[in-house]
Amino acid sequence: MSAAFEKCRNVLVTGANRGLGLQIVESFVTGSFSPGKIIATARNPDGATELQNLAVKHSNIHIIQLDVVSQESIEKAAVEVDEIVQEDGLNCLINNAGINVVANFETVTAEKMLENFHTNSVAPLMITKALLPMLKRAAAKETGMGIHRAAVINMSSLLGSVELNWGERANNFKWYPYRTSKSALNMVTRCMAVDLEEDGILCMAIHPGWVRTNMGGQEAPLSTEESIVSVLNVIGGLSEKDHGSFLHYTGEPLPW
Amino acid sequence: MSAAFEKCRNVLVTGANRGLGLQIVESFVTGSFSPGKIIATARNPDGATELQNLAVKHSNIHIIQLDVVSQESIEKAAVEVDEIVQEDGLNCLINNAGINVVANFETVTAEKMLENFHTNSVAPLMITKALLPMLKRAAAKETGMGIHRAAVINMSSLLGSVELNWGERANNFKWYPYRTSKSALNMVTRCMAVDLEEDGILCMAIHPGWVRTNMGGQEAPLSTEESIVSVLNVIGGLSEKDHGSFLHYTGEPLPW
Repeated sequence: MSAAFEKCRNVLVTGANRGLGLQIVESFVTGSFSPGKIIATARNPDGATELQNLAVKHSNIHIIQLDVVSQESIEKAAVEVDEIVQEDGLNCLINNAGINVVANFETVTAEKMLENFHTNSVAPLMITKALLPMLKRAAAKETGMGIHRAAVINMSSLLGSVELNWGERANNFKWYPYRTSKSALNMVTRCMAVDLEEDGILCMAIHPGWVRTNMGGQEAPLSTEESIVSVLNVIGGLSEKDHGSFLHYTGEPLPW
Repeated sequence: MSAAFEKCRNVLVTGANRGLGLQIVESFVTGSFSPGKIIATARNPDGATELQNLAVKHSNIHIIQLDVVSQESIEKAAVEVDEIVQEDGLNCLINNAGINVVANFETVTAEKMLENFHTNSVAPLMITKALLPMLKRAAAKETGMGIHRAAVINMSSLLGSVELNWGERANNFKWYPYRTSKSALNMVTRCMAVDLEEDGILCMAIHPGWVRTNMGGQEAPLSTEESIVSVLNVIGGLSEKDHGSFLHYTGEPLPW
């Protein structure tokens, strides 16, 4: 775990009930350097048994309910986050919640495209908007750029790279809704980077690798721990030069 | 007008009631080389007075009703197209219909994002799926790649380039729904290029320039005619090397 997280007073992770989101929370509390408060959101906190068990052992985990496609839920969550972070504000928002509405050219429908787009591309935008006052509050206390100040991290995917969707790479994962939602998320990331820069809020997109989760399947090469150790190392080292970037979990830039 | 259109028996243009779509139809019928049949779609053909007037003068223009966000309308239109093109099939589908739901970071909502995405990114995919049998029929009669055989042309925008949305270029047109919808359309284009290749159907995205239309506004540098003369010249010259590409109206490749 990067020592930079020691300077991160408050972090929020969406979709923390399982997979990469749960692993982020777990890596935070079991690592050498942990943020002050970890706000973990889940659509259904009552069903998030593993997350609840972690929170029993670690009092700095705050679980809140958030359905990322409901504006009412987003606004309600923002009020709760405000109460938790108070004057410190929010140093790091990790938009991790995402779905894969699997469909190829034959099976894709407008409804599948819209559903995946709403959760993966629109929700990170609407959540960032709702939490902006808290991100600004944290950013106002520091200089430079990074998680010591304020950052928005969007969990994207290499499958969202339009350029890399060609040749041999394109023969697998012909997922129209997912690929499209992640390229749209990359554009949302870049738009927000442009707009949040004047407040000193870093914004970037990261590819966590192909991971053995419910979404990634069991043939994936990386464990959630391997992915997240690397992802958090990259996030911990972010600075001005990474603003508006799209990075591989190993830290290398990816083409759009 | 490229002589290549002489070899294009049937072409379809969506959103032909005004702006660039209307100009495409007009340039076809007034140019030296015109496709055999020009199928022009409009959501509300009765209100498309200029298009109706053109069709009175040119019997190779076939106007059909198409609401691009309605699957029922798409399927009904596909039946009509089939009756018009018959055994020749469809050589060139120009997915031109598009909207700009103007919103910046402050004013953007989930509804605005979804509306723009549906019309600009999802509709071209669903229309291409519905017309695929006709595109395949045309492709089966020829070899090589281009509009002499079968091609899907998506009207994209430089504003959909994630890479170019940075620095000075990013300070204007901070349109979240539009930019996101066009980067999503670029991914749809690339996905379809991968899938349609085995049938010999070329698929690419083109930026028509900043044009004086209702959408582009009156301060835009290009007239619809200047844009479309150039766009049709590029489309007429497409070959294997342009499959899966994103081109400027001058023919240069654009970064994703």
